[in-house]
Amino acid sequence: MHSSASHAPPATLRWVSSGEAAGHLQLLDQTRLPGEVRYLDCRTADEVWHAIRRLAVRGAPAIGVAAAYGACLAACGPAASEAAVRQACAHLATSRPTAVNLFWALDRMRSAAAEVGDAAGLAPRLLAEARRIEAEDRQTCAAIGAHGADWLAALPEQCQLLTHCNAGSLATAGDGTALAVVFELARRGKRPHVWVDETRPLLQGARLTAWELAARGIDCTLICDGMAAWVMRRRGVHAVITGADRIAANGDAANKIGTYGLALVAAAHDVPFFVAAPRSTFDRQIAAGDQIPIEERPGDEIAAWGGVATAPAGVACFNPAFDVTPARLIAGLITDAGVVAPPSVEAIAAALFAS
Amino acid sequence: MHSSASHAPPATLRWVSSGEAAGHLQLLDQTRLPGEVRYLDCRTADEVWHAIRRLAVRGAPAIGVAAAYGACLAACGPAASEAAVRQACAHLATSRPTAVNLFWALDRMRSAAAEVGDAAGLAPRLLAEARRIEAEDRQTCAAIGAHGADWLAALPEQCQLLTHCNAGSLATAGDGTALAVVFELARRGKRPHVWVDETRPLLQGARLTAWELAARGIDCTLICDGMAAWVMRRRGVHAVITGADRIAANGDAANKIGTYGLALVAAAHDVPFFVAAPRSTFDRQIAAGDQIPIEERPGDEIAAWGGVATAPAGVACFNPAFDVTPARLIAGLITDAGVVAPPSVEAIAAALFAS
Repeated sequence: MHSSASHAPPATLRWVSSGEAAGHLQLLDQTRLPGEVRYLDCRTADEVWHAIRRLAVRGAPAIGVAAAYGACLAACGPAASEAAVRQACAHLATSRPTAVNLFWALDRMRSAAAEVGDAAGLAPRLLAEARRIEAEDRQTCAAIGAHGADWLAALPEQCQLLTHCNAGSLATAGDGTALAVVFELARRGKRPHVWVDETRPLLQGARLTAWELAARGIDCTLICDGMAAWVMRRRGVHAVITGADRIAANGDAANKIGTYGLALVAAAHDVPFFVAAPRSTFDRQIAAGDQIPIEERPGDEIAAWGGVATAPAGVACFNPAFDVTPARLIAGLITDAGVVAPPSVEAIAAALFAS
Repeated sequence: MHSSASHAPPATLRWVSSGEAAGHLQLLDQTRLPGEVRYLDCRTADEVWHAIRRLAVRGAPAIGVAAAYGACLAACGPAASEAAVRQACAHLATSRPTAVNLFWALDRMRSAAAEVGDAAGLAPRLLAEARRIEAEDRQTCAAIGAHGADWLAALPEQCQLLTHCNAGSLATAGDGTALAVVFELARRGKRPHVWVDETRPLLQGARLTAWELAARGIDCTLICDGMAAWVMRRRGVHAVITGADRIAANGDAANKIGTYGLALVAAAHDVPFFVAAPRSTFDRQIAAGDQIPIEERPGDEIAAWGGVATAPAGVACFNPAFDVTPARLIAGLITDAGVVAPPSVEAIAAALFAS
């Protein structure tokens, strides 16, 4: 049903207003995709915390926007106070450890709360800030798409791209990061074909990226993660583009587990490997990737599927949710402020944070 | 229930005799593991064909032994003739294209049939040949284990190994190929810990290898295929050992899809990559790996699990069952006639086929 369509998938999140300073957050429950499109109603910051924790909303930029609205929920209602907002922000910050956009968005919300003198002004001010973060994310996605498409303008019309996990509209409030580049290339007349890593264990590639690409009418082929090297060797890939969850000052990039191995096999085939991310994904406090905290998730994400065991009972599992790709394997960082290629401490600081 | 046990898992296959020249083949249905231990009764060569095709029996050496008994089934019964055996062999040879042990075993069965003058002598002769192939496979596994353990004797006691797919007793009539080395290292006093690639799409690592290792009391940790590079970088791996389905004259080795990417990431971490296989897996008619035929299997092996879709309806999939690892990435070929390290046309010919 999606094959010849060309429209964006349903919104990743939406604020349902019930007055100037009241409302609740609806999150598209991504754990149910592609089988079912269902929104979760979040009326407390804790409900947003749970939604982030169990990956109902995921993708570094989308987590940031969701957390921002989560902070608003603590500002709405009779118990609102700056202290309550600060407490909600502290709680939301514990939902997942790796994506830095979460902490970046919460910092903005805390600063906004601190500027407000009276409790009555809190909700309108925070809601305005969350809406601003959401709107900026949309613009950021568009800028990433434009800069990436400029950089890749010399690719053949029928270019072969490969991506891992989901860095599309479902990972952001806009068109995505890595996929924004793909969509923009298509808008400019190319006919990209995207090899989609299914992305074990949670199959964000199969469930989300393949679904988004089909909805937009972009030609794609689903593969298992271990097939990427063979696809590069036998079929040929012009470029790999992924998103990122946190990028250190030197350009080392944490992203969905499997990205590092993918970057290594891309290097072995001389396939340029790009990371697309907004400036809010950069963590300038962290010098290099080995300092990025890597979330470990429960082993049953590997050893069972749909509640049915796929491995012997009691098997030990190792389930890091992310890995770190060293900057030396990254041809370019595609950001909303331009492409940094090759990445380095100096080039990143100059291009992205000079002002 | 397996964690502290130390016994071989159930037999991969067994011939159930009902007289000197009659009987049928029982195959452990590996598609049901680890949840259920159930044997399939095969009473015709065509039933063996289907069992091989749908991976009820898999692993290059085990496919060879199963096909040999499949040929016997055409020699038992009133319609037995050399022509019927030849026809059965031709049919069995179409079950799967990549593992050369299948063709090697069928060649032996055809030659045995050609030596027999009368129809009455056919069944006893073929059955003797199939039993010989099975017994040789058991000895071959033991020899691979011994040569591999000799070669790896300098590994630390608590060595960290990594394997892909299943190259254990379930892939052979004996102790396996890659896993025979692990079992022999343990017998000699080492305490190997094995990182087990789950091996998408059909999870032979999760379902079969983790199960076998647990049954033998070998410590193991299950990971997704895309995690191997990160395990090498963060945890450290002393050696990777896999099996093979066909090895060209120059040492290029076809094995389960994902092996090639694994060999590339091993090379990037200076982790030696070994391929363990019997001489019957070598195809001296094929000069290099790019001539090895690679089976492509249905896309629903990727896009669904347990009959439930895990990707949007109608998504295109690419599902090669194997890939080819070039000899330059292989530190050594661990065979029943010794370890060829590094592999080359000359070294392979001299070490394995000089007689």
